[in-house]
Amino acid sequence: MATISRWTHLVRFLAVEDGRIHLGQIDAKKWPDIGLALDIGARITANLIEGNAFNGIVTNRTMEISRVLSPLSMAEVPVIRCLGLNYRDHAREANMPIPDVPVLFLKPRTALNGPAPAKINIPKIAQDGTSDYEAELSIVISKTGRDIPVERAMEYVLGYTCSNDVSARNQQFKNSQWCFSKGLDGSCPIGPVLVAPAAISDPHKLQIKATLNGNTVQSSNTGEMIFDIASTISFLSQGTTLEQGTIIMTGTGPGIGAMRNPKIALKDGDIMHIEIEQIGTLINQIYYE
Amino acid sequence: MATISRWTHLVRFLAVEDGRIHLGQIDAKKWPDIGLALDIGARITANLIEGNAFNGIVTNRTMEISRVLSPLSMAEVPVIRCLGLNYRDHAREANMPIPDVPVLFLKPRTALNGPAPAKINIPKIAQDGTSDYEAELSIVISKTGRDIPVERAMEYVLGYTCSNDVSARNQQFKNSQWCFSKGLDGSCPIGPVLVAPAAISDPHKLQIKATLNGNTVQSSNTGEMIFDIASTISFLSQGTTLEQGTIIMTGTGPGIGAMRNPKIALKDGDIMHIEIEQIGTLINQIYYE
Repeated sequence: MATISRWTHLVRFLAVEDGRIHLGQIDAKKWPDIGLALDIGARITANLIEGNAFNGIVTNRTMEISRVLSPLSMAEVPVIRCLGLNYRDHAREANMPIPDVPVLFLKPRTALNGPAPAKINIPKIAQDGTSDYEAELSIVISKTGRDIPVERAMEYVLGYTCSNDVSARNQQFKNSQWCFSKGLDGSCPIGPVLVAPAAISDPHKLQIKATLNGNTVQSSNTGEMIFDIASTISFLSQGTTLEQGTIIMTGTGPGIGAMRNPKIALKDGDIMHIEIEQIGTLINQIYYE
Repeated sequence: MATISRWTHLVRFLAVEDGRIHLGQIDAKKWPDIGLALDIGARITANLIEGNAFNGIVTNRTMEISRVLSPLSMAEVPVIRCLGLNYRDHAREANMPIPDVPVLFLKPRTALNGPAPAKINIPKIAQDGTSDYEAELSIVISKTGRDIPVERAMEYVLGYTCSNDVSARNQQFKNSQWCFSKGLDGSCPIGPVLVAPAAISDPHKLQIKATLNGNTVQSSNTGEMIFDIASTISFLSQGTTLEQGTIIMTGTGPGIGAMRNPKIALKDGDIMHIEIEQIGTLINQIYYE
């Protein structure tokens, strides 16, 4: 008989047993970071989740992970809403004033990408030595809503995951709007695990780190957010329907490649880690198409 | 027996006969502007189209239009890609340099709206006396593609329609990115008719006009476009999958409310017309929620 409980650590994966896509619950005590564990070849079994990410129930049937995918499929993500300049320490680095309202740009769902073995594909137009990373905490919206008051906003959080706002800087700085330079195919890797709010002590007290080929290039804390998660959800929903499955990327800390001295950029074959406390590590290799 | 031919003037509508949604072909010789015709109470019958907008075939079965809808449903539109500052005469008015590359921002599909009797709903956050209009030619992408060469780009045009890039100017000028201020629910009315490329003599020689309560507020020509349609489709597809059903709004001419002297804004009850030669007139009343 199935164990009836909500998931806390959800993965979407291809199973060894049948080669098909399943949702599973990871035992976080045993596997606190499945990104790192899979990277060193750990064999991980997950308890299958019946239903989808929004209503799924954990069962006692298990399967072994062959390949982990983005926690949501492209069909489940209507759009990706992203905040620019939402970390105090990044605003200082960029020498930009603290914005009065959230700075919103969108990535289309075609930007969605998964954790390793999925790669961050850099298309021709971005192979100009300015392809860049941004480590970000992403949230997934649990149910469709509009004009959501701040005090109810956290009810709309399905879970948290790691993400990378891959950016083509030359394209970004060619004009005022960021949707082309940050909307390329595969420019939004997320995962590997979606962690329910119940399993996070405080989403505004999480260390967030990026490493490139093993070197730490970003290190901040979600406490540096200018607009916290509830304020962001509430603001973005004003006059605007946030559909179930919407991903909100909550901005990045300092240390992006374009603002380092000397500047750095993503090269073919580089290994990128985005690591968030209590969530885990999103690993991707860079691939020049 | 059904007449087998591709549609040239497609409408999506509720039928008098059964109150259900259908696709229909309009006889453009008889009804060169169904927006204006429906506005004065004309009774219009359409030849039903079998299939969807992407593969539909005109039949000889007819039904009468009870209410016309946006030519595509929200489920058929993955995202709305919009160009900023794409008319030479508007760039002069705004005193902005001609951009080197298309300036792209996105509206989510939740912004999609239809022609009258659908209204342009202005939510509370935009009821600040700066809600504005932008008359634009929109194109619909016929098939999914990526890295589309300029010389093949026009093969990706399913059709042309009228559209209004409704903009909350105070919100727009609060920060650098336009996706919140231009992404509110209902801020992208399109329609009433989708006209196939075969029925347009030259999409870059069309008069485009906006009237507000009968007064002409914008008047330009699609020949003023900085990036023409083929260049736009090709550029936006670089490294980026353009999904079937994507709407591309191609920018606006001079005369927007924010740049008039004195400034004007959309008020509750106003009547807005967007009129494009060879396509017709998109009519909407403004409604303060």
